[in-house]
Amino acid sequence: MKVSEIGEFGLIDLLAKTVNRPPGKQLIIGIGDDAAAWYGDTSIQLATVDSFIQDVHFSLDIASWEDLGWKAMAVNLSDIAAMGGVPRYALVSLAIPPHTEVENVIALYKGMIELTQQFGVTIIGGDTNSATPVAITITILGSTKKDNYILTRSTAQPGEQVAVTGYLGAAAAGLEILTNQLQFDTEATAILKKAFLHPYPRLTEGQLLVDYGVKTAIDISDGLISDLNQVCKSSQVGARIEIDRVPIQPTVKANLSQKSLELALSGGEDYELLFTASAEVIDKVKRAASCPITVIGEIVADKKLTLVNSQGNPFKLGKTGWEHFVTR
Amino acid sequence: MKVSEIGEFGLIDLLAKTVNRPPGKQLIIGIGDDAAAWYGDTSIQLATVDSFIQDVHFSLDIASWEDLGWKAMAVNLSDIAAMGGVPRYALVSLAIPPHTEVENVIALYKGMIELTQQFGVTIIGGDTNSATPVAITITILGSTKKDNYILTRSTAQPGEQVAVTGYLGAAAAGLEILTNQLQFDTEATAILKKAFLHPYPRLTEGQLLVDYGVKTAIDISDGLISDLNQVCKSSQVGARIEIDRVPIQPTVKANLSQKSLELALSGGEDYELLFTASAEVIDKVKRAASCPITVIGEIVADKKLTLVNSQGNPFKLGKTGWEHFVTR
Repeated sequence: MKVSEIGEFGLIDLLAKTVNRPPGKQLIIGIGDDAAAWYGDTSIQLATVDSFIQDVHFSLDIASWEDLGWKAMAVNLSDIAAMGGVPRYALVSLAIPPHTEVENVIALYKGMIELTQQFGVTIIGGDTNSATPVAITITILGSTKKDNYILTRSTAQPGEQVAVTGYLGAAAAGLEILTNQLQFDTEATAILKKAFLHPYPRLTEGQLLVDYGVKTAIDISDGLISDLNQVCKSSQVGARIEIDRVPIQPTVKANLSQKSLELALSGGEDYELLFTASAEVIDKVKRAASCPITVIGEIVADKKLTLVNSQGNPFKLGKTGWEHFVTR
Repeated sequence: MKVSEIGEFGLIDLLAKTVNRPPGKQLIIGIGDDAAAWYGDTSIQLATVDSFIQDVHFSLDIASWEDLGWKAMAVNLSDIAAMGGVPRYALVSLAIPPHTEVENVIALYKGMIELTQQFGVTIIGGDTNSATPVAITITILGSTKKDNYILTRSTAQPGEQVAVTGYLGAAAAGLEILTNQLQFDTEATAILKKAFLHPYPRLTEGQLLVDYGVKTAIDISDGLISDLNQVCKSSQVGARIEIDRVPIQPTVKANLSQKSLELALSGGEDYELLFTASAEVIDKVKRAASCPITVIGEIVADKKLTLVNSQGNPFKLGKTGWEHFVTR
């Protein structure tokens, strides 16, 4: 059987079984969440790793080296955000062809550092390799604030509301502009390109969720539906999403009609947080957060993910998100 | 300027300057040693990452998927050994083509687990990506034993002896057998292939060095001379190595004459530990260790690395070790 037949999520499940080591006294979360987590002496420790590979995750035709650095780092920091953690150290493993200009490697690092400095993260090590294509693998180490707990994917409860931070669909629209599939005016183009190239990890918001008692979160990397599916699967629940409540990014909504919803539901790469909690908790988060918090539906006991329109009628969506290996 | 013009070590120096964040109160070692190190609550924390890329670091023509898993993990654990640390968790980022057989990915993991289980290390996370060539990036997190210190590259002192664990040259000879450049009898072939494919990280020995007061160590990955050069550079000292004392692996020595010394001095990939300490400390280590410990020379104040034969005459070596990017 080939990896393409079981897909990325099938492979991850299988590897989790191969490793076959249930969380012990110290290990809280192993393979299968945004980051691994274990008990340190005074706080929970977190670690996550993600590779960013040329012509799989990015193209140097549409992103500068500095953009790459920013985005590779943002994607990783977002995994710590989704755990409600505080990032602390980063390790960078770099594969680059020998003919790469040194100034490009420096630009790549500058892009990373621009972001790490904002969050007090230090790049403490890594390795460099001569190889093609360019690949950037970043490990982030972090922790919770003292005595705090973590946000996981497996704690969603029927009756809880489903909410998201910020707006969705801008990154996917930005990618379509960058690959010349869409055209907007200059201002909209700048906003949407930036959404794709410079996503901002929701670290402040992740920590806020912990402060207000939220237990369940994931970052929206593959797409709202795909990532919500992950939460439902891990929590053994279902969800009912009202598509009219999904916060489509205003520029996207103003310029695209039906397609804007598709981008918001399945475009991915917005790196907003999806979380579940009681209506009361979400109200508190709304008041405290400096970004929009939008309720888009609820968790249900029936293990199905359904989309409904404002009349309560089922809505069908084609593409549901990004998964590696699977040929569509 | 291209990366190939400044070489791997030049690039690492430059990146260390770009990151430009001197070790602070908590961070002990950033970029430039075998692993990063910082103060935890009751012990020093360690982290290291290494990528293992098809047709750069390995070929599937000569190594099975299980061999790959073992070696990628061993190489990383060796970095923790060189710090005198105790490895604890591993994160695995995998890039594989979609047509890869699932059983091969499982074999890769089995190879890793065979080794991690011996050292109480748990694979706690990672990510999977669809890409070519195959690339395995492993992050190892570890710590020192409580209240213990770490072995670094920067603490070698003139007058100290230079010693190595085990024997050298077997891995390089194994690679030449696997690539059909050398032929040996069946038994020798098996021993040397294994030395290349299944190096055994010197974790027990690294911790022993700490127990007996050694301060300076590095693992021999690029080659004895190249790695000793790293120690000399970091410690701002030189070294005088007596080539007749270098412990050439017996099978290599018995089958190859002059070439055996070259393999031992610059072949690399043996993953033995090179360390420096007083004669008295090294005697204690010798008595306690379950592997051979051999003194091969001494650290000198003059910042040069010289090789001498038994008559004390200078010995010249061509190739000195493996460095990425540099075209020879």
